[in-house]
Parts: sequence; structure tokens; C-alpha cells
Amino acid sequence: MEKLKEIIRDVPDFPKEGIVFKDITTLLQDAKSYQRMIDLIAHRYIDEKIDLVLGVEARGFIMGAALAYKLGKGIILVRKPGKLPYKTHSTTYELEYGTDELHIHQDAIKKGQRILIADDLLATGGTVKAVIDLIEKMGAEIVECAFLAELKFLNGQEKLKPHKVFSLLQF
Amino acid sequence: MEKLKEIIRDVPDFPKEGIVFKDITTLLQDAKSYQRMIDLIAHRYIDEKIDLVLGVEARGFIMGAALAYKLGKGIILVRKPGKLPYKTHSTTYELEYGTDELHIHQDAIKKGQRILIADDLLATGGTVKAVIDLIEKMGAEIVECAFLAELKFLNGQEKLKPHKVFSLLQF
Repeated sequence: MEKLKEIIRDVPDFPKEGIVFKDITTLLQDAKSYQRMIDLIAHRYIDEKIDLVLGVEARGFIMGAALAYKLGKGIILVRKPGKLPYKTHSTTYELEYGTDELHIHQDAIKKGQRILIADDLLATGGTVKAVIDLIEKMGAEIVECAFLAELKFLNGQEKLKPHKVFSLLQF
Repeated sequence: MEKLKEIIRDVPDFPKEGIVFKDITTLLQDAKSYQRMIDLIAHRYIDEKIDLVLGVEARGFIMGAALAYKLGKGIILVRKPGKLPYKTHSTTYELEYGTDELHIHQDAIKKGQRILIADDLLATGGTVKAVIDLIEKMGAEIVECAFLAELKFLNGQEKLKPHKVFSLLQF
């Protein structure tokens, strides 16, 4: 796992001064690391009852698409406003400054379906918390929230309780 | 193939009046169709020499991620401005009204690498033409441009010449 961690690049002062951004593109473009990352995460869910994998725009689409393929499931999308063409449910959530909005197609989930949520990075957990609120209102059950990496010091797991969280790499 | 075509949903008047939008989310969320779509496209490239799969933001990330995984390659990303944290090359291209900009990390491609470009839909071809211009300047060779679906009446293949184009479904 140390090798996968090392291949993720630190970019200082992105998206703003003082933040050190975890750039996963260096991992994604390395064939062996990319395959290994997906296999290791998917392995955890081989025996789970999962109906759908959910990918959060936009890097979550990468994790979600590869995991869904590997697990033999379909993928559903949570997107920014104005991107989904059909009727949607939406939720507004707080950011550090201002608010943001997430949408999902109304027919993406049927009541009682078991959803695996996939995203690249767990930071404060605000976005995925909003996703959970959104799909629970639709009657979904959350299998787990799966991340490639987690910034432990931001304590995102706390925010997502009582839901289960898995992160392959911890920083 | 007719079954895959039928499962794609027509959404009238999106993103604006008079446009009939091909909504692929209905295909993505159907496990069998999603697996079949990726397998059929990937099959075409099993014996090709490919170094990297390129995904175009954002739906192209889904195609690209699953194809790269299936083919055992890494994935590189072409994104909208402000999204990639490291040093980028960029290109500006014409839209119907105004212009748009695409970015790629400067270290995403090494000279001579063979790139498979993946996106969901070939319409006029403007976006993918911009992607091609961008990565050819970096010394990339284009294996082919692979799309889930193509709107034949918009004649996008013409715009992408002399590059090879493959679309699984034609409308």
C-alpha cells in the first residue's frame, strides 16, 4: 500500500494557498497502480449484496465506473446542476463559503436497493454526506462509502456516521 | 446492438429547445448493458498496442475508466479549466456560441505514446478534435477515438479525419 501512497503527488497551494492537494492522476496513469487500486477495493465487496455503484462527479466517475465494471454492476451518477437531462432529485449543502447543489435522476434508484458509494478522496465528508441524504430520501440502503484515499486529520468518517466507510489509503 | 440502442433514453428539449438529448444513464445503470457495452468496445482493442486510455470530462471518464481497467492500461484525463492541480497544456476551441477550454497535465503523455481516446457521444466532434490537437502537440499518437454512440447526421467523423473513429451504436 505504501507504493500506492507514494505515487500520489502532493501539489502545494491548490486549489488555494496553504492547501496541499493530493493529486491522484499520477496513480491513475500508472497501469499497474490503477489496476491494483481497483482490484484491492473491489475485492472487499465481492461477496456483498450490491445493486448499484454510485459515482460522484467527476473523479468519482472514474472509481465508480471501474468498480461497477469489475463487480458486474451498473453505475448511477450524482452530478452538478444542469448536467442530468431527465427529472432529478436534488440537495443543497454547505461549503466553506456558500452552498453547492447535487442532482440524481429520479429513476436512478428503486426503494430498498443497496448502493455502494464511490469517490476518490474523503476530506471533510461534506459532499458524500449530501449524497447519502439525497439517496436515503429515495429509499436506498447504503452498503458502504468507498474511497481511494482519506485525509484522516479532517475526520470525515465522523461526519458520515453511522454509515460504513472504507478508504484504501490514509494520509 | 439494437437492445443497447433501445435502452438509451431520448430526452426532448435538453439542454435547450429543439434538441433531443441521448441520455445514456439508463444504459449505465443496467448492469448487463453496461458490462456488454464495455466488453464490446474493449474487444476491439485487445490486440492493439495502446499505452494509455484518455477520458474526456465528465462522461468520458466513465467510458475511459472502465476501458482502461479492462485493457489493463492507465487512464489520463482531459478536464475543464481549474480542475487539474499540476502544470497543464491547454487548448481553446469554438462552440456554437463562444469558446471553451480543455486542459491536460504536462506529464500525462510522453512523446510517441499511443493513446486511445474515449468519450460517450460523437456529435459534431468539436470537443474530441480539440483533444486531438492538444495531445498531438505533446507528441502523442492516436490509436483511435472510441465512442459509445454517434449521431451520424452531424457528421463528426469528417471533422476527426484522418484519425480513426469507432462508435458502438449509431443514431
